[in-house]
Amino acid sequence: MSVTNSAGRAVEKSAPLALVCGGGSFPLAVAQSARRDGREVVLLPIRGFVDPAVVEPYVHEWIYLGGVERAISALKRHGCREVVVVGNVLRPNWRQLHLDWTTIRLLPRIWKAFRGGDNHLLSLISGFVEERGLVLRGAHEIAPDLLIPPGTLGSVAPRPDELEDARLGLRLVRALGPFDVGQGVVVGHRHVHAVEAAEGTDWMLQRCAELREAGRIKLQPRTGVLVKAPKPGQDLRVDLPSIGRRTVEMAHRAGLAGIAVEAGGVMAVEIAELVAEADRVGLFVYGLDE
Amino acid sequence: MSVTNSAGRAVEKSAPLALVCGGGSFPLAVAQSARRDGREVVLLPIRGFVDPAVVEPYVHEWIYLGGVERAISALKRHGCREVVVVGNVLRPNWRQLHLDWTTIRLLPRIWKAFRGGDNHLLSLISGFVEERGLVLRGAHEIAPDLLIPPGTLGSVAPRPDELEDARLGLRLVRALGPFDVGQGVVVGHRHVHAVEAAEGTDWMLQRCAELREAGRIKLQPRTGVLVKAPKPGQDLRVDLPSIGRRTVEMAHRAGLAGIAVEAGGVMAVEIAELVAEADRVGLFVYGLDE
Repeated sequence: MSVTNSAGRAVEKSAPLALVCGGGSFPLAVAQSARRDGREVVLLPIRGFVDPAVVEPYVHEWIYLGGVERAISALKRHGCREVVVVGNVLRPNWRQLHLDWTTIRLLPRIWKAFRGGDNHLLSLISGFVEERGLVLRGAHEIAPDLLIPPGTLGSVAPRPDELEDARLGLRLVRALGPFDVGQGVVVGHRHVHAVEAAEGTDWMLQRCAELREAGRIKLQPRTGVLVKAPKPGQDLRVDLPSIGRRTVEMAHRAGLAGIAVEAGGVMAVEIAELVAEADRVGLFVYGLDE
Repeated sequence: MSVTNSAGRAVEKSAPLALVCGGGSFPLAVAQSARRDGREVVLLPIRGFVDPAVVEPYVHEWIYLGGVERAISALKRHGCREVVVVGNVLRPNWRQLHLDWTTIRLLPRIWKAFRGGDNHLLSLISGFVEERGLVLRGAHEIAPDLLIPPGTLGSVAPRPDELEDARLGLRLVRALGPFDVGQGVVVGHRHVHAVEAAEGTDWMLQRCAELREAGRIKLQPRTGVLVKAPKPGQDLRVDLPSIGRRTVEMAHRAGLAGIAVEAGGVMAVEIAELVAEADRVGLFVYGLDE
């Protein structure tokens, strides 16, 4: 089987897949999913963000966040033609960077993109990877089993009015698309209570819990839906929204009735575990398919 | 001079103006502005939300939040034909309500509107007031001197790139219009960092300060703009956005460069005081006129 990059170049699926790994549990979940699919993987864990123990069972080479050249030559040495970048690199500090010369020459472009917000930074990454003859793949292509499927996932189904809230939230995320804002909103009784921007989903849910306690959000307990979806036009290869067991816990603490995501557009490391937790606390988890 | 209500009925400007007063300093500022304009005013302060000392110099009758009938008969007794509702009624509790029979009969409509979000609740109020042969006026009509005018207000002018941020924020607030979300956003370097919903402006600015400290918003100090504007299609008679000296303090603490509002669409009790504070801390205050 062969795939084609944007320059029309064919790429052999039999070549090992390079996984640039940031923090969190997604990189390993993607690596395992690729292996289950019979794919050979080479991990390039970023020093300072990845636990050495978890990459031990894999062919791997440590890289630095600022070591673009070293990363490129490592994956060429291993015969990789396709790269997936997965995991977070929250709050890097200068000691973790270890800038090499290629990265330094890229800095003006990085800085410009950085100031322009996420979307630009991410298109810079994919552009640079493809300039070097590589193909950037998305975790959703390599590990589609980690995507939330359509419909009700656990034993709790959303009521029709809750689905209405969910669809309103999805329309809002889509309307926010041109502004490159967040991927999450909280809707209850056809009313928008929170919109995620720089704070992230957990912080937004924490705020909902506090606003409810303070009487600033007036909803019955177990009312309201967290909605997550990719921004329209977002490159899923470099920024795929995700939920996890913690999202379920935080949504529960915020007094919500459930979580609705765009089916096929949001990832979860351990869907079964997440759904079990949702069932335990009585939350619905739903994949919106429209 | 006479104005006309939506039913086409003429209303004498010479009749006293009724001011239903909630908390905060806006009701008195509007009353003073109306008096400066040669208008007689009758205050209807809502028990539990207004300091008795401040209404003392005015003709006034105390009402309860749940006493719609009493309010209507009080203002008819004083010969009022026009009503302004101004000030906040944050977190009322049942003891403060004192429901009368008219209010009780209105409860199903109030409850339905309440669940539908602010816009519906507010159109209910204006609808009910006009059903009773009265004219609902907006504080912006009675006290236009309290509206932020176009252009730079103090001694600090926004740079062109800051104006670009401000205009992006204004476009975002307008795009959010159909969703009845908040009236405030924070934009820095053409990137949206926060969107206000149920939490209100102060809470959003507090979050920006914390996100900056945590490194989740990566902006140089004194970068970013708070943008406030009415939602498009919003009835300014019942929900006029406002800023104050505290907004300036909070924006300063959040590390922003300035505040931009839709000129003529946002109110401030003491514009001079607000601008003096902005000048002192080096923030711009700008009225967007487009």
